[in-house]
Amino acid sequence: MSATELKCRECAARYPLEARYVCEQCFGPLEIAYDHSALGDDVSALRRRIQAGPQNIWRYSDFLPLDAPPGPSGRNSSRVGLPAGCTPLIRADRLAERLGLGEVWVKNDTHNPTHSFKDRVVAIASQRARELGFDTLACASTGNLANAVAAQAAALGMPSYVFIPADLEEQKILATGVYGTHLVKVAGNYDDVNRLCTEVSGERENWAFVNVNMRPYYAEGSKTVAYEIAEQLGWTLPDRCVVPIASGSLFTKIAKGFSEWTELGLLDGDQPKMNGAQALGCSPVAAAYEAGADVCRPVKPDTIAKSLAIGNPADGPYALELARESGGGIDSVTDDEIRAGIRLLAETTGIFTETAGGVTTATLAKLAERGDIGADERVVLVITGDGLKTLDAVRGTFEAYEITPSFDDFEATVEQGARI
Amino acid sequence: MSATELKCRECAARYPLEARYVCEQCFGPLEIAYDHSALGDDVSALRRRIQAGPQNIWRYSDFLPLDAPPGPSGRNSSRVGLPAGCTPLIRADRLAERLGLGEVWVKNDTHNPTHSFKDRVVAIASQRARELGFDTLACASTGNLANAVAAQAAALGMPSYVFIPADLEEQKILATGVYGTHLVKVAGNYDDVNRLCTEVSGERENWAFVNVNMRPYYAEGSKTVAYEIAEQLGWTLPDRCVVPIASGSLFTKIAKGFSEWTELGLLDGDQPKMNGAQALGCSPVAAAYEAGADVCRPVKPDTIAKSLAIGNPADGPYALELARESGGGIDSVTDDEIRAGIRLLAETTGIFTETAGGVTTATLAKLAERGDIGADERVVLVITGDGLKTLDAVRGTFEAYEITPSFDDFEATVEQGARI
Repeated sequence: MSATELKCRECAARYPLEARYVCEQCFGPLEIAYDHSALGDDVSALRRRIQAGPQNIWRYSDFLPLDAPPGPSGRNSSRVGLPAGCTPLIRADRLAERLGLGEVWVKNDTHNPTHSFKDRVVAIASQRARELGFDTLACASTGNLANAVAAQAAALGMPSYVFIPADLEEQKILATGVYGTHLVKVAGNYDDVNRLCTEVSGERENWAFVNVNMRPYYAEGSKTVAYEIAEQLGWTLPDRCVVPIASGSLFTKIAKGFSEWTELGLLDGDQPKMNGAQALGCSPVAAAYEAGADVCRPVKPDTIAKSLAIGNPADGPYALELARESGGGIDSVTDDEIRAGIRLLAETTGIFTETAGGVTTATLAKLAERGDIGADERVVLVITGDGLKTLDAVRGTFEAYEITPSFDDFEATVEQGARI
Repeated sequence: MSATELKCRECAARYPLEARYVCEQCFGPLEIAYDHSALGDDVSALRRRIQAGPQNIWRYSDFLPLDAPPGPSGRNSSRVGLPAGCTPLIRADRLAERLGLGEVWVKNDTHNPTHSFKDRVVAIASQRARELGFDTLACASTGNLANAVAAQAAALGMPSYVFIPADLEEQKILATGVYGTHLVKVAGNYDDVNRLCTEVSGERENWAFVNVNMRPYYAEGSKTVAYEIAEQLGWTLPDRCVVPIASGSLFTKIAKGFSEWTELGLLDGDQPKMNGAQALGCSPVAAAYEAGADVCRPVKPDTIAKSLAIGNPADGPYALELARESGGGIDSVTDDEIRAGIRLLAETTGIFTETAGGVTTATLAKLAERGDIGADERVVLVITGDGLKTLDAVRGTFEAYEITPSFDDFEATVEQGARI
């Protein structure tokens, strides 16, 4: 594989490709380092090689940290797991028109096995976990990751332990427990859950916590969102991406995906402006951005966007740096704006997103209203999860007619109502 | 296009390709007739042409009743609508093992834009509606169709009216209203709703009811499930398909898809045995099958599988004929078996299905237990909709641990619990 070692993001110390996530020298986060020289410099050949791959993230295996990536999906779910990625990128002209923008695309990651982008990161973490000999999958989750880990473990035939905040939406609890995982509700918020999992991870040698000891592999999965966007735009870069921020990992790894491919010559031109989106009720990165700070002050989350409710975001400083260097920014929106964002996206595109996508759509609307987006910009809105997972957020946002099964009642109630 | 006319299934009377669904001579249902001779007889060339198409149902345009099928999806959702189809076919060895079967595949239609197979039929009905000049989409729905019509109308920028039984699951109501459709709750069951829509359809000339006046076009969408299965199995036929029955349309059209391609030489061999699956609480077709009857006696539905709750199934007689002629059958399962079916599929494949898929999985289990399936058979289980839509069905089917965020509590509660 082209991954060569783990490298500390802070002090550049190097480690073998094991289940490690923290630098022993400086406690900085570890990332995957690559040597892509074996891929050669024939860009056309490399593109054809990617296009000949399966319709899922394994088409990007050359850029992922696995010894033996699974073959085409479908052959045997117990070997290859659930097929993640290759989700639609849809041009949303009616959304653009409503916001007074030129060109808006929606990357719709609800088209994943458990309907969020977490299937990407879990696919990679779980495959690497098996390569490294782990026999049990585990995670700390705000909800979507719980669904993804429980489902992937079921597909692979591995036992799993999923730790969630006890107050998680019931939808995400039901959609996790159904897979037969060991579901652990922890009395506390996500940051409490995460601390507990870090401790458990140190004590259970055969457990692969996808977002703790497997984190460097896990995080690389988010790069595939960028690869797909670029491939779907005909091997070109967008001008701007609007992406939700929880830990900051997705936001920074999407940018890493674009820059990796640009360095390899697969893409040309300026890197996209990166705009981060947070819920006001949990906006440590947006607050630090506005204050001009380099680090985030932890907060206690209070928002309907629970999948973004990380009060102490691990990659906050890197997200801040990226937003500033790329010419983007980081904004936050209220819960009412989130609900309006969900409705706006649904009405103009037919895509129903969870609260996190409401955050992203509302942030795009805010950028548009502020005049931050040029008329000729090509903007990609990254929708990370499905509206079916946070149905409570749309309860009461629309009205229905109630009639008896008679044509007269239909005319009197519905048609009269529609004409008002 | 290769569609030539509408043809009465009963008396073979012919009509132009308009918005008609019932024969004026004998009141039989109208179907699409084709002349595929323009496709030629070079099977390899035809396969390559299909494979070069987009990753959605429009790759099968040569076999669908549209003048001008949309191009590759993604270009502009307001023109092409939501991208349906090309859902995964996954080999489920752990499910097969649990049931003592040889080779089981799951066709996972939860990977559609609104997470059910209805996106296929709506895609075709709505495109044809636009070709015929309609300006409004409408439907009578048991839930999944409501989601699909409201979403597709939003994507295409068309107004829509969705008629549902007032007692539908709240998940499906919320996941429909969010798109800004006119949502009409009718006090009655699906058959009452359907009768009302038939009446409204006769009175509103600019409304395309996808499953009333557009029904012949709509129904053709289900053939694409068969096309995909055959293509994904390397241009071969499965030995047996297990498919849910509501109106009977999906069941019969999947068989039509296989036989059409066999006649064209795209596939060889025996047609699959077709097994229909119903919920005992709404099993008019299974009851008629068991009684050796040719027609179904209408019933009042009482089952958790509301998406299959059609008490007076329009295609019941054709489903009976198909089950008998293909060497399959039609079975029914209890609500408890449905819940167990949902859990079985989730635990062994990582696929979370709604109640309809629980019906199908439980029926497969019943066939296996009865010894109806040969050891060397290749069986395809058709999963039509997503578990997130009927979460109530899994509430109470599993237990969770509840702990404080401390390692001691984790060890005492979770690990002790897991060991019991």
